[in-house]
Amino acid sequence: MSLLVTGSIGIDTVTTPYGVSEDCLGGSSVYFSMAASFFTPVRFLGVIGPDCPFDLAEVFAGRDVDLTGLEVREQSKTFRWKGTYSDNMDDRRTDYIELNVLAEAPPEVPEEYRDSKFVFLANTAPALQMQLLQQVQGPDFVAADTMDCWIKDNLDDLNRLLEKIDCLVINDGEARMLAAEYNLVKAAEKILDMGPTVVIIKKGESGSMVCNGSGERFILPAYPAAEVKDPTGAGDSFAGGFMGYLVQAGKTDFASLKTAVAYGTVVASFTIADFSLAGLTSISKNDIDGRLETLRQVTRF
Amino acid sequence: MSLLVTGSIGIDTVTTPYGVSEDCLGGSSVYFSMAASFFTPVRFLGVIGPDCPFDLAEVFAGRDVDLTGLEVREQSKTFRWKGTYSDNMDDRRTDYIELNVLAEAPPEVPEEYRDSKFVFLANTAPALQMQLLQQVQGPDFVAADTMDCWIKDNLDDLNRLLEKIDCLVINDGEARMLAAEYNLVKAAEKILDMGPTVVIIKKGESGSMVCNGSGERFILPAYPAAEVKDPTGAGDSFAGGFMGYLVQAGKTDFASLKTAVAYGTVVASFTIADFSLAGLTSISKNDIDGRLETLRQVTRF
Repeated sequence: MSLLVTGSIGIDTVTTPYGVSEDCLGGSSVYFSMAASFFTPVRFLGVIGPDCPFDLAEVFAGRDVDLTGLEVREQSKTFRWKGTYSDNMDDRRTDYIELNVLAEAPPEVPEEYRDSKFVFLANTAPALQMQLLQQVQGPDFVAADTMDCWIKDNLDDLNRLLEKIDCLVINDGEARMLAAEYNLVKAAEKILDMGPTVVIIKKGESGSMVCNGSGERFILPAYPAAEVKDPTGAGDSFAGGFMGYLVQAGKTDFASLKTAVAYGTVVASFTIADFSLAGLTSISKNDIDGRLETLRQVTRF
Repeated sequence: MSLLVTGSIGIDTVTTPYGVSEDCLGGSSVYFSMAASFFTPVRFLGVIGPDCPFDLAEVFAGRDVDLTGLEVREQSKTFRWKGTYSDNMDDRRTDYIELNVLAEAPPEVPEEYRDSKFVFLANTAPALQMQLLQQVQGPDFVAADTMDCWIKDNLDDLNRLLEKIDCLVINDGEARMLAAEYNLVKAAEKILDMGPTVVIIKKGESGSMVCNGSGERFILPAYPAAEVKDPTGAGDSFAGGFMGYLVQAGKTDFASLKTAVAYGTVVASFTIADFSLAGLTSISKNDIDGRLETLRQVTRF
């Protein structure tokens, strides 16, 4: 089994009530890959400019993350994002964003990645997600993330993409917008009608919900984390833990999807405990398994 | 075992995106008793004025709800509340409130109620809750609800009450305010330090969390309700299902508390499916048990 992720690599500056992390490593591909690497090898795809101060080979040292798909694009610049979280960590303000390389053509999928069986298309323009997906030959399970701006401005592209993927991972506000339905149970059903066989709705502090076309459902609260320092990357880490476990399990039946969502939840709880990747780089698979057991225990009655 | 509830009886006018319910029966005691009556006999305590258009004996006909403690106070008037829910049902605006009898002395606890072993003090001024509680001789398990205005303006009274009760049932915003702590896990721990041995934090659409002084925790999502017409009474129904089950079980160990919270969650999901009490009066205990099984199933991994 092989897991391909396409997404962003960013230079982030993040302010939360717990401090400031200046020019730290971020981006959806990075969080996703770090999270997934606890479970399975990862094929990484993304573009940076020559200005990127991070050596990704060093960042992922000791982890099975294939960087063949990392393109350093001369004449371009790395994606930058600066954001500030409010006191309650619920609201996030973007102070500035420099798309840079993300506004250009997407990277090409390397020949040796094209047989990937599991693919995660992190959030970007749906036409680009489609372009990336079309370079993969006969994947078994494709999941994608999206966001409000594409639902609003690129709905036709998104609808075409939805017909081609197996699983949409989306947050609650976006699910409501995409389905034009406030009730999340009904929204999930409407999204399933748009193409994917599985929809996962992330509700932040309130956990997540999984629905499939056969009427099966799974609802999981968030891990009761006492330490939350920086929520950046929670969603991408969730997706990384989720996809990583599925590849490790080698199957996508509903029982496996449930366990995968639980792993995603737990991995995200480590991410938010510290700035940038520090919450993930300081733990072992044993820590993740321990927290999964705790989550199982505190949700069972 | 015997369950005493003290709280309000109201004439409500509720507007939601699904319609208007004018001058319908409401109030914390009423919702609580209807919910608890599926599990155990209830001793009802509350005051109305002669203007009250509802015959509570008829409302509770066929249910084991003792109305000895229902006082019709001449020269007074029944509590009235008018509220409007926003499109997303999350925000509620109070259009008007007439405290009437609720602004006067509380009812006296009848002699035959004073040996009650389980007591629920629905939300009112904490000094009044204390006054009611002091009339009960040696209860085994006392739970109380409170709200933001008492935390803000009557904190000393509330602190005294917290030392006398076993369980505080409180919503997330109020828990954060009472504990002066945004993180709910930490807030729960701070509240446990104030006196109760159990704290239940209700998070609306996000479910609930139970913590006790021994470090045990339980987290349950809300029931995934596809039909939500009127959220009024959800919290009181939750408390009624919770306390009702505990009395039926005759114990308050953590396993029983978990099942009780699950029953509270399920009963509330029926309440919100229709206006006023219609969601509760149209179901049987079998419906509740069926939904409990579904909730168990959709949360297990």
